[in-house]
Amino acid sequence: ALTEDTTAKKAIESLQNEHLDVEMPFYLYVVDQYGKLVGVSSLRQLVVVPSETTLRDFMTTDVFAVQTDVDQEEVAKIVARYDILAVPVVDETNKLVGIVTVDDVIDIFRREATEDILKMAGAGEEFVETKSVLKSTRIRLPWLFASCLGGIVAFLIIGHFEGSLIKLGYLAAFIPVIMGMGGNIGTQSSTIVVRGLATGRLQLRDIWSVVSKELAIGLILGLVYGVIIGMAAQFRYSRGALAVSVGVALICSMTVAALVGSLVPMVFARFNIDPAVASGPFVTTAIDIISVFFYFQIATTLLGL
Amino acid sequence: ALTEDTTAKKAIESLQNEHLDVEMPFYLYVVDQYGKLVGVSSLRQLVVVPSETTLRDFMTTDVFAVQTDVDQEEVAKIVARYDILAVPVVDETNKLVGIVTVDDVIDIFRREATEDILKMAGAGEEFVETKSVLKSTRIRLPWLFASCLGGIVAFLIIGHFEGSLIKLGYLAAFIPVIMGMGGNIGTQSSTIVVRGLATGRLQLRDIWSVVSKELAIGLILGLVYGVIIGMAAQFRYSRGALAVSVGVALICSMTVAALVGSLVPMVFARFNIDPAVASGPFVTTAIDIISVFFYFQIATTLLGL
Repeated sequence: ALTEDTTAKKAIESLQNEHLDVEMPFYLYVVDQYGKLVGVSSLRQLVVVPSETTLRDFMTTDVFAVQTDVDQEEVAKIVARYDILAVPVVDETNKLVGIVTVDDVIDIFRREATEDILKMAGAGEEFVETKSVLKSTRIRLPWLFASCLGGIVAFLIIGHFEGSLIKLGYLAAFIPVIMGMGGNIGTQSSTIVVRGLATGRLQLRDIWSVVSKELAIGLILGLVYGVIIGMAAQFRYSRGALAVSVGVALICSMTVAALVGSLVPMVFARFNIDPAVASGPFVTTAIDIISVFFYFQIATTLLGL
Repeated sequence: ALTEDTTAKKAIESLQNEHLDVEMPFYLYVVDQYGKLVGVSSLRQLVVVPSETTLRDFMTTDVFAVQTDVDQEEVAKIVARYDILAVPVVDETNKLVGIVTVDDVIDIFRREATEDILKMAGAGEEFVETKSVLKSTRIRLPWLFASCLGGIVAFLIIGHFEGSLIKLGYLAAFIPVIMGMGGNIGTQSSTIVVRGLATGRLQLRDIWSVVSKELAIGLILGLVYGVIIGMAAQFRYSRGALAVSVGVALICSMTVAALVGSLVPMVFARFNIDPAVASGPFVTTAIDIISVFFYFQIATTLLGL
């Protein structure tokens, strides 16, 4: 940082002498005698003005700066949005304390994207190359616990329908397809929402249009696959009520999954909880339980078991 | 681009006159009379040399350039790795045809990360804000087809064990937990591998160390959760052979899932197939089928059904 009275020529000389080790001097930040940020000049401006002009005369005084407590991802988004090369960082008294440059921003984006991806997969912040087997195991263990609890709930629900299963063993045969289809469409929905929020393509105020769109997609896809799986069931077991039960359960499961998958990350984001976490095993587990319950409830009702 | 005979002063003037509209002129690329790239100078070098020096005398002749057919993600990785601000693009005769600047690189990384995330979730290249319901449905429909086929295979497998299910209805109660745990650990493994490959933290030659590490993690986590779920089964049904079957099936399922989840993306990458695709519903579906088959095979053997 230089003071306002420095001439363009002096500024160039100071670059030559003092700042040779500065990594990427795109902008020259100008401070007053208290070290407070008052202006900015680009290296290009410096070159193209008469050499005796002082910085005060050609610097831009409308400097965009971020406070020290701003989240790094926010800073990165600002740099990306305005296609600027650096952002000065100031403390609460507007004193210049640092600079975030565009190469930092690239690192921030790559790291944040990786973190989001791993969180969505319920792999915490594990990076494959840095951790030992035991460390990795410790990081991943708790994320599977949601799934474990969900599995226990699912077996209690199914245990409740044990009587129906003994009468009609192949009722169990459709558990995987209903869970799998629900889980997959739920993952699609939550991923689109989480990534949309992360990149800023999606705003929290769009919540109802997003959720109702996902609901519509879930219903259409549910109808398509409900008919396919229902026909497969009919072909294999030739029992109309079973085929209809499976088809209807699949429609319900996929519609609810799209709803839960899109709604939960948005609600989490509204309460300032990282939506990438919501998209992980938690959503999948919730969908598993709901799917299994719906299926058995619908099947036992329609089949009169 | 300027020619080699241009002096520093002339170069600065040309910046002032002609290149005012150039977005981010960090580097001045120097070409010969045929337009071929011969050197580079930074704006800073231009400022600090005596004004009558020609570009030929202070330019760097060892210019790093990329060919026009290089993948944009590769170019972005080069810029990020070397912390440079721009890379010149040349055709096969070394003629300068364009420049990729650091702000392009930020856009490339964000887009690639988003694409990878959506592909892993089996949501194709859907962006939530641009598509109509019908368009989104069309994009997502085929990705669910793998899951649908897998579900049909799973119900054929379970149908095969119908006799056992009629004798022991609650056998079905453990299908969700075994599928869910296997699916989740498989997603963890494949996500870590896919992201590791995308960021370059993981190399294809590490395949065996990565896969064997994942196998070890799968085995340890399988043991932990196998004991927990086995105990829950014992507590609910008080039948030792069932509890052991469930526990052993869970260990097998989680170990195989970690193996498949890490191996498949690496094999895909080796054959130049985008590993992000492998990590989607395909891996999950394969794991579902394997889990269900193992479970019924182990349970019917141990329970003597």
